[in-house]
Amino acid sequence: MIIDLRPPLAIVGDLLLMLAVVMLVPVVFLPAAYRLDSPAFLWSALICASAGLLLRVTCRQNHLSLNPPQIFVLTVSSWLAVGTFCALPLLFSGLGLSATDAFFESISGITTTGSTVLSGLDQLPEDILLWRSLLQWAGGIGIVGMAVALFPSIGVGGMRLFLSESSEWTEKAMPRTRQLSKYLVIIYTFITVLCGVSYYFAGMTAFDAVNHAMTTVSSGGFSTSDSSLGRYGNPLILWVSVVFMILGGLPFMLYVRALVNGERKVFARDAQVKGFLWLLLLVSIVLGLWRSAYSDVGLWQSFTVAAFNVTSIVTTTGYASTDYTAWGSFAVVLFFALTFVGACSGSTSGGIKIFRFQLSGILLWEQIRHLIHPAAVLPRRYNGRRISDELAASTIAFSFVFFVTMGLLAGVLAWSGLDLATSLSAAVTALANVGPGVGDVVGPAGNFSSLPDIDKWLLALGMILGRLELLTFLVLLTPEFWRG
Amino acid sequence: MIIDLRPPLAIVGDLLLMLAVVMLVPVVFLPAAYRLDSPAFLWSALICASAGLLLRVTCRQNHLSLNPPQIFVLTVSSWLAVGTFCALPLLFSGLGLSATDAFFESISGITTTGSTVLSGLDQLPEDILLWRSLLQWAGGIGIVGMAVALFPSIGVGGMRLFLSESSEWTEKAMPRTRQLSKYLVIIYTFITVLCGVSYYFAGMTAFDAVNHAMTTVSSGGFSTSDSSLGRYGNPLILWVSVVFMILGGLPFMLYVRALVNGERKVFARDAQVKGFLWLLLLVSIVLGLWRSAYSDVGLWQSFTVAAFNVTSIVTTTGYASTDYTAWGSFAVVLFFALTFVGACSGSTSGGIKIFRFQLSGILLWEQIRHLIHPAAVLPRRYNGRRISDELAASTIAFSFVFFVTMGLLAGVLAWSGLDLATSLSAAVTALANVGPGVGDVVGPAGNFSSLPDIDKWLLALGMILGRLELLTFLVLLTPEFWRG
Repeated sequence: MIIDLRPPLAIVGDLLLMLAVVMLVPVVFLPAAYRLDSPAFLWSALICASAGLLLRVTCRQNHLSLNPPQIFVLTVSSWLAVGTFCALPLLFSGLGLSATDAFFESISGITTTGSTVLSGLDQLPEDILLWRSLLQWAGGIGIVGMAVALFPSIGVGGMRLFLSESSEWTEKAMPRTRQLSKYLVIIYTFITVLCGVSYYFAGMTAFDAVNHAMTTVSSGGFSTSDSSLGRYGNPLILWVSVVFMILGGLPFMLYVRALVNGERKVFARDAQVKGFLWLLLLVSIVLGLWRSAYSDVGLWQSFTVAAFNVTSIVTTTGYASTDYTAWGSFAVVLFFALTFVGACSGSTSGGIKIFRFQLSGILLWEQIRHLIHPAAVLPRRYNGRRISDELAASTIAFSFVFFVTMGLLAGVLAWSGLDLATSLSAAVTALANVGPGVGDVVGPAGNFSSLPDIDKWLLALGMILGRLELLTFLVLLTPEFWRG
Repeated sequence: MIIDLRPPLAIVGDLLLMLAVVMLVPVVFLPAAYRLDSPAFLWSALICASAGLLLRVTCRQNHLSLNPPQIFVLTVSSWLAVGTFCALPLLFSGLGLSATDAFFESISGITTTGSTVLSGLDQLPEDILLWRSLLQWAGGIGIVGMAVALFPSIGVGGMRLFLSESSEWTEKAMPRTRQLSKYLVIIYTFITVLCGVSYYFAGMTAFDAVNHAMTTVSSGGFSTSDSSLGRYGNPLILWVSVVFMILGGLPFMLYVRALVNGERKVFARDAQVKGFLWLLLLVSIVLGLWRSAYSDVGLWQSFTVAAFNVTSIVTTTGYASTDYTAWGSFAVVLFFALTFVGACSGSTSGGIKIFRFQLSGILLWEQIRHLIHPAAVLPRRYNGRRISDELAASTIAFSFVFFVTMGLLAGVLAWSGLDLATSLSAAVTALANVGPGVGDVVGPAGNFSSLPDIDKWLLALGMILGRLELLTFLVLLTPEFWRG
């Protein structure tokens, strides 16, 4: 074997040990009256810890640094392993979930997608609700950590574009990466606490505030109610949510640079952040005006609801305050299109992401100028940097594989009987880690539970593929990778 | 004025004079009993000839060669002018068509899209039917000529990739371009005659054979019957159609190289041709097997119908032998996906085209290999040539603008009330010059006549945009172009 699998698997073991501790959170922190399934969590923690220990012992290594192939193995295997073990409390609980449903819900949780097979959330035991929120919160920091600490050293996700010096991100930078990870966890936790407190003062119960804080900042989208944030009928809560969904959709490296390095205006100068915020503002205004013109809803209320739901889909959170697909066809097409977009690179969000659209737009504009002035050599720049041909090629490759995977996934879903709109939007909402699609089944008012089992497995696979920026996963499927 | 518009407009004048002659074809060649609207054609020819003469006289130029900006103006203005004047016989005829409908039908004809607002085709006067077919036939050779003679010198459409030496295609190559155009017209006419004779011997009437020959080779898709080729219930006719749709979807330059230059095996060696044929074969087999498994239709009949309808959509012809969207959701999603594809570059077909998918696939594979071996420099090659960074960027630009235009067009269609599937597929079928979409209204069993007028204008604009490979049109909308 050319690739030594032990170092990455040892780290997976560490992750499982940490996960076992997280599994105790609902048991330890919830009052007894709220803990209906404590044995489920205790047994899960035991199994998870045993598996973690086993990996830790059998794969124990003295050196910590991983080479790029090992990083690929680590990213893919850690998401698969964590996602699988996270399903245990759901499977053992008294909810009567099938293995398929438990796995789907768990993967939807840790990938911060937010599609659910559960209904009657309002009556669900608090420990299960808390567990779902914890899944997303852990998934959110996992994504940011992976994007900032792992992806740059394997050339995935375009993160190099946003780092001050790409040479910082070699294997030698491990101590710096650890330091950075600590900052990220602190910032992430701080924003979450702030979000919870804000929700509480805006009118949520403490329990709901804690849960929604965890699923907002992680751009997850799980809620404690079937009607999601629509349950409260409280515009203040929606606006709190908009603010913190946006904070979760910003590049977390910029927080570090702003807070730790003291770089002021780092947000205001970032092309991706500007594009993200302008997009939210413009689309919310258009939708708000349209909605207000074609219904008897007032302008401000219309704008509030538009801003909330647009932000929810663009940041790939997936909350809904209402069934916006009942507003009419324009809203359906708009939300379908927004499902692809995603927020900023290096945030908790999924999707194609703003910077890829901006890069594509720059390449398009360059192409048009090239047609007009064939002889002129035009340096292409984005966010103050030259766009290398490698980056252009990586953008094309990502978009191509995204659309092809979407097509294949939609084709298989259609084979099992879903209609065109449902197949397409279920495929996109999984790959982009959004949550809801459009249509009766997978739309904001629907539920994934009625889908055939095979579709649930495929959608869960799609969520992991999307979370790993597709290429990371595909690399592992090539014989060339394993030849080393 | 920096760009001298007179030379391109003089050529548009020539085209209108030629068009006036074509308008006399139904009057001259049809027996009297078939000519119900001769005055409509005579008046149209008179107006068209007058406009052509006016342009010819006011814009008369001594030198023939055009510079690139003039070529841009020529491509866009010639399609707009020809499309507009071609609507006159339809408008003047006794059909009672509105200006919108006449324009839509005309643009759908010359862009070889094949969407129609007319119903009761079987009862329509023969001169109108022949006119529709002539529109598509003229449009087909117009597209090939444009792709081979004009696009390479302005860097549009990736054609340089397929020419033996790009230096041949400078302005100085005009005499050679004229020679080449002559060959193309001869080959195009020859294939059309062969197609008509084959249709006739397969069982069509002489009139139907002539009309369908013209709309098959041009990948147009207009028929003389509401049930398109399904009317005959004759598998032989379907297979004849498959063969000639494929011949129309091949790069016409290869015919010249095979027949004139005597280069044998030029088709067998071409990566795009191989990809095109493999795609047709594989998709037809999958769909045939699926259809045969989930219905009581026999295997061979199922394969015949699958091959016919798949070839029709991939070549962007748009005939239908049956309402395949009634087969079930898998067929709907499959045909929706096929609407994007298109056949080969330099053929009569539209769409994204096979070579762009192949280039994207190569760039994706390169990207995956680059992730595995970051240090390795891998030369990317397609069809025996190096893929330049410029070509990669032009592929990304085209795909990006295609999807964005599709999204915007679908959004506006949805605003007017069309549902998601109809909006998306109407937008794609227009941009890719296919003809039918999916759904009740724009699907193979539907009709575009019930759409709001604004949608018809937008779809007609989309057809022209698609026919001009989008960028050619967009260039003219930039202030930079007009500054010279």
